[in-house]
Amino acid sequence: MMMDPEKRCGMVRGIFEPQGVAVVGATEDPAKSGYFLLRNLIDLGYGGKIYPVNRNRETILGLKCYPKVNKIPGEVETAIIIVPAMEVPQVMRDCAEKKVKGVVICSSGFGEAGVEGVKLEKEILGIARESGMRILGPNTTGVMNTYNGFTSSFVKISKPRKGPVSIIAQTGMFASVLLEHILTTQPYGLSKIAGLGNKIDVDDSDILEYFEEDPNTKVIAIYAEGIRDGRRFLEVSRRVAMKKPIIILKSARTRLGGKAALTHTGSIMVRDEIFDAVCKTAGIIRVGDIEELLDLMKIFAISPPPRGDRVGVIAYTGAGCVMSADAVESYGLRLAELSNKTMNMLRMYTPPFGILTNPLDAELIRMKVGDAEKSMRLSLEAFMKDPNVDMISLVMVGLTKGSKIWEVDVGRVFSNIELDPPEKPLVATILASRELIDYYREEMENLGIPTYPSLLRNIRALGALTRYYLKGRNLTHPSYSN
Amino acid sequence: MMMDPEKRCGMVRGIFEPQGVAVVGATEDPAKSGYFLLRNLIDLGYGGKIYPVNRNRETILGLKCYPKVNKIPGEVETAIIIVPAMEVPQVMRDCAEKKVKGVVICSSGFGEAGVEGVKLEKEILGIARESGMRILGPNTTGVMNTYNGFTSSFVKISKPRKGPVSIIAQTGMFASVLLEHILTTQPYGLSKIAGLGNKIDVDDSDILEYFEEDPNTKVIAIYAEGIRDGRRFLEVSRRVAMKKPIIILKSARTRLGGKAALTHTGSIMVRDEIFDAVCKTAGIIRVGDIEELLDLMKIFAISPPPRGDRVGVIAYTGAGCVMSADAVESYGLRLAELSNKTMNMLRMYTPPFGILTNPLDAELIRMKVGDAEKSMRLSLEAFMKDPNVDMISLVMVGLTKGSKIWEVDVGRVFSNIELDPPEKPLVATILASRELIDYYREEMENLGIPTYPSLLRNIRALGALTRYYLKGRNLTHPSYSN
Repeated sequence: MMMDPEKRCGMVRGIFEPQGVAVVGATEDPAKSGYFLLRNLIDLGYGGKIYPVNRNRETILGLKCYPKVNKIPGEVETAIIIVPAMEVPQVMRDCAEKKVKGVVICSSGFGEAGVEGVKLEKEILGIARESGMRILGPNTTGVMNTYNGFTSSFVKISKPRKGPVSIIAQTGMFASVLLEHILTTQPYGLSKIAGLGNKIDVDDSDILEYFEEDPNTKVIAIYAEGIRDGRRFLEVSRRVAMKKPIIILKSARTRLGGKAALTHTGSIMVRDEIFDAVCKTAGIIRVGDIEELLDLMKIFAISPPPRGDRVGVIAYTGAGCVMSADAVESYGLRLAELSNKTMNMLRMYTPPFGILTNPLDAELIRMKVGDAEKSMRLSLEAFMKDPNVDMISLVMVGLTKGSKIWEVDVGRVFSNIELDPPEKPLVATILASRELIDYYREEMENLGIPTYPSLLRNIRALGALTRYYLKGRNLTHPSYSN
Repeated sequence: MMMDPEKRCGMVRGIFEPQGVAVVGATEDPAKSGYFLLRNLIDLGYGGKIYPVNRNRETILGLKCYPKVNKIPGEVETAIIIVPAMEVPQVMRDCAEKKVKGVVICSSGFGEAGVEGVKLEKEILGIARESGMRILGPNTTGVMNTYNGFTSSFVKISKPRKGPVSIIAQTGMFASVLLEHILTTQPYGLSKIAGLGNKIDVDDSDILEYFEEDPNTKVIAIYAEGIRDGRRFLEVSRRVAMKKPIIILKSARTRLGGKAALTHTGSIMVRDEIFDAVCKTAGIIRVGDIEELLDLMKIFAISPPPRGDRVGVIAYTGAGCVMSADAVESYGLRLAELSNKTMNMLRMYTPPFGILTNPLDAELIRMKVGDAEKSMRLSLEAFMKDPNVDMISLVMVGLTKGSKIWEVDVGRVFSNIELDPPEKPLVATILASRELIDYYREEMENLGIPTYPSLLRNIRALGALTRYYLKGRNLTHPSYSN
């Protein structure tokens, strides 16, 4: 049964924004997943009707309980299913009878578990196709919507901050861990999370189409092990990527990885060079690991777009200058040629033996003005105002507390600089004692400045941002293509 | 004047282990570098004689002060010089008269500052050659020896932990920052640090020869912008690398980086593919950035050598399994084929639908035994004992505190496992909330298990360790060459 695209997208929307939800397999036993599932829905403040389904109980966590989905009196737009795999087909038939529009199947024991599981998948997919229901999963934690508190997560999760980033992850558990990691280490908030599991029906493309229309989603991050319908993915992602940046981490890129993915989510491997070509054609940003994924999510979430590809580097210690210059070339960017105005201004604050250039060795200025804070403020202001500088990478160093030479009060440095909002992308890296790194990261990210532990990652992030926003423009640098 | 190698090495030893030291430019003014230089020597407990040199003072920090080096009565093996560049030639002549064997010139304003500076360098090098003195620098913070408390650092530094790693850094400031970073974030200690600055005389090869003989140096890390005498570097590093691992971060690899290095330390760029070939021939490990440098320093400092190239991966969440498998292939390692004994043992603790393989999805075992701690202990013990597993990568995940499912007490997990000392390399990565990451890192690194923020970096570190220790052995994997 084929559906028109609009209807399909509408049904996916229901999985994130259901009017009423049945929780099949809800329980009051905190040792079981069915407990946390219901707990999360209540704790995160989901405003719709919640119907626990469990034939052995009258009420669960204070909510009236039903023996079967088709015994629920009110509207049930979505059902979350967390019962043993063998029982899922019957639950599906009950859902079909109740005219449920979408189900999230959290249970495992399907395609990832062998031949019997594959058969079960075919059976439930048949039931869904017949009734027009959509299936998310199985073998997943499902969805989370920070804007209405709706979730199908069955692991205890913290109440998330709302924000511009939405995530599609093949595996729900991975999505949950990523969620906790982002909430406690990253400066931005989240909008929607989808854990797709075995992807027997709803896939990356369906979710992308929903995110395309979702006004609260500005940046999309994907973790995938396999893509089922490559042609449709290319078509959809290409359209969505014109509006919103899509960053993808696709594993199972090697023979060994492909084998592992088959066991994990039953994904069939795509030849890696083919997938690479898909990403290039669609204009989506492919990354190599979780660290790079998080690095790029951060800059896309909190940085303004650059107006060109010319980087200004302000580094303390010459080593930072040299390594930054290497990185700028490696990531296909250019070093800005500082304007005469900037040069003349900085010349006043540089000792006679100092060679003024970009990357700027800010240590020279510190030596002349005798104060790290003043040298940083002067340099940053000059670069911020210089029309030849499209974006800035700041490389800070620090010693132990009490070694005054490079210590700066971040609040004071930035109080004089136009940074609210910053008009150019500005990223910072900090090599210092742990104490100073923590202090600088916290303070700077609060001001909307992404920080990274390595200047290579600074420039890599700026490179990705630039390639996305300047795509199609006539860039001068030869290596400057996506 | 040519010296025989033995004598040259002896003189470099004097720069790290001098019998007596003159500090030319010592001062009591804490705003000046000459203050911290003397302060560090006293605070770090250097046991030799210290002679401050300053024509305007009788004593400095309680030590008798001399107007010139050649007025010092006792033996002066090494002089540290921190006076304006223009005054350095005269100080050098005084040192020559006093038969000083080595000088560390901290002053800047030499080759890195233009034509006049280059002339000055030629002049002081002439004086040194005539008298047989060696020069470290100029434009550097010089040396640090944690074993005798000797240092020429003029920035305030913490008292370092003794340990197996010695560092050669082209730029002294960078070395000082790296030192603080290592002391506060890394689990190992340091032996010697050399900041070479403009390298007009003593270079990487000289220091390598000293480290070759130094019984306290087990691992050598280098940051270089240029190598002056490539032929000698190849010859020396090749010999030293047979005995001790050498990890090198060489910047100025691109056209832009080369230009920046010229301004910074006056280094002439080496074509990058040539330097790559030198590293391969010499058997030294080349890294791409500071993060990779630190990653490898850690594993080489605290891990035992592997006996083969077969990796066992224990990962929570299937995504960790898939990405680990990709990484194992990418970094030229193999996935271990688990022994029957291991398989039979693990089978008892796996639910019937679970597919047992390597990478091991330890989540399956957790589901069966109902406890993350027990599942981790069981898996680790099995892998530790399996003769087919040469090294282990553990991928841990965690949620918020209170989500019990993946929380483990590291002390309890490892109390039952042979880990003192660990007989196989074991590394761990942790994706979790910040709180849990900090806890696991601390606990595991105290047990001698290097941790990384990314499983890609886990495997990259294991790959480097394996390539170094198994070099020359008949490895089966085709991509397995250094």
